[in-house]
Amino acid sequence: MEIKYAVIGTGAIGGYYGAKLAQHHKDVHFLLHSDYDHVKSYGLKIESCDGNFELEQPNIYHDIAEMPKCDVVLVALKTTHNEILKDYLPQITHRDSIVIMIQNGLGVEHDLVNWLPNLNVCGALAFIAATKIGKGLIKHLDLGRIMIGTYNFECNKMLLRAISDFNESGIPAKLSNNLQRARWEKLVWNIAFNGPTVVLNTLTDQLMLNEFSRKMVYDLMLEVIKGAQAVGVGLEQTYADKMMAMTDKMKPYAPSMKVDFDHHRAMEIRYIYTVPIEVARASGYHMKKVELIEKQLYFIANK
Amino acid sequence: MEIKYAVIGTGAIGGYYGAKLAQHHKDVHFLLHSDYDHVKSYGLKIESCDGNFELEQPNIYHDIAEMPKCDVVLVALKTTHNEILKDYLPQITHRDSIVIMIQNGLGVEHDLVNWLPNLNVCGALAFIAATKIGKGLIKHLDLGRIMIGTYNFECNKMLLRAISDFNESGIPAKLSNNLQRARWEKLVWNIAFNGPTVVLNTLTDQLMLNEFSRKMVYDLMLEVIKGAQAVGVGLEQTYADKMMAMTDKMKPYAPSMKVDFDHHRAMEIRYIYTVPIEVARASGYHMKKVELIEKQLYFIANK
Repeated sequence: MEIKYAVIGTGAIGGYYGAKLAQHHKDVHFLLHSDYDHVKSYGLKIESCDGNFELEQPNIYHDIAEMPKCDVVLVALKTTHNEILKDYLPQITHRDSIVIMIQNGLGVEHDLVNWLPNLNVCGALAFIAATKIGKGLIKHLDLGRIMIGTYNFECNKMLLRAISDFNESGIPAKLSNNLQRARWEKLVWNIAFNGPTVVLNTLTDQLMLNEFSRKMVYDLMLEVIKGAQAVGVGLEQTYADKMMAMTDKMKPYAPSMKVDFDHHRAMEIRYIYTVPIEVARASGYHMKKVELIEKQLYFIANK
Repeated sequence: MEIKYAVIGTGAIGGYYGAKLAQHHKDVHFLLHSDYDHVKSYGLKIESCDGNFELEQPNIYHDIAEMPKCDVVLVALKTTHNEILKDYLPQITHRDSIVIMIQNGLGVEHDLVNWLPNLNVCGALAFIAATKIGKGLIKHLDLGRIMIGTYNFECNKMLLRAISDFNESGIPAKLSNNLQRARWEKLVWNIAFNGPTVVLNTLTDQLMLNEFSRKMVYDLMLEVIKGAQAVGVGLEQTYADKMMAMTDKMKPYAPSMKVDFDHHRAMEIRYIYTVPIEVARASGYHMKKVELIEKQLYFIANK
């Protein structure tokens, strides 16, 4: 059985993982919009810290209606575009298809299953530094592993086969039995830095250097950890100290939301802020400081 | 007994009240810095909605050491300069002098008595719209009443005489027996709008029009009201609704902190944010959202 893959959202993440699979002779079908003509003519190029490569003639589509039914759909859209999946996914999936949501934040699987209850949905967290630096050109800077967890179905042969395909293609992939925990762990850092760098128009290092914003960042982390605890994810307070120490060692960094804001793109406020706030509150914990940042972000987004 | 008045901080507020008193033949002594030479030559001018007037030769001083001992000292400095009072006030007060702190926020009297325990200190809230629009030139736009309350001494003849002088001079002045409540009431609006207009670089109307920032502003008000309740000031939640309705009717407005920020002047973060947060917390209520704004303001102030 050869798995047919679809990549929806051929940015840095989707483009990289899809290209790695295709490079290793997996059957991958990419949906492209603005880059379609360029990739049709010049192919898809990956400048990777593990060695550059390119796909001269990848299977690319400009129109979702022309794509084949696929067994595994990798969704690597910005979450701000997720509503389009209501229309897209039914066109390229069959009864046994698996949709893997490689996205940040909390609640993307929940919304998707709410829209399309019959889908088999996985969540995934990608630990990778990659950027699309031009049309059909992706720069892979570091890391690359991916952690995949089922959301509404039991792990099956198709999923195991996909994970095996990933590993055969040079992508360290693992099945997680605690995706929820992994998502909350990632939220600790994401909530503390994504919004504040936008609201205060700064980078991570400046927030760490000023004693007041440093306290703010730390307080936000503690709130997220308490939120995680409220929903039953046993994160420890020391995780915040670990994240602080890690960030102290980082070079000045613009989190993805700051990059989106600077490029006048929509910010992923809903899944990084709103849903975690709602989920924690439904379990009895009100992340008040996080909520204030959320409100400020929506104000800025609507300015 | 004629009262000798000193005005420390001859900006819009101090200048206006001092000039009103002097216009009505009270004995007023003004400390001036940058405007000294100008006022020496051209006098002090008030463009007032109640009728323009000017003092041709007010008693002005460039050096605190040259001022006489005064009976009543009106302090109308920006609170960010209050530390200078440690040095100033002992030079111009006698044993029975009264110092009236006409300033925003919470805790100015507490700090002053902490520095100079023997002073007789009053707090005051000015309900006035006035701006210094040029050297020795103050524009009085609206209102003017002042509410004065004793902080660390029993109301005495000198204070009553001063209040009477105010009223004789066309300044509606009242003794308050609940200055604490008046200060917290004013904080409800000041905390909700001063910081957010700076952090989000906007004016009051924009915060009211956007559904998210509107919610943020309202949540901040509710936190301040809960803070007030924690310290025993019986503010009702409906006071927030009243302030929202009032602000809805206002023209687009830059609160004083936003004006200070835009003019690269120090912001009054300590008495409008830090002290109220500390005072409420000491009484068991943590104003978390207010604290987040406070941290953001200190970050911005130190940028």
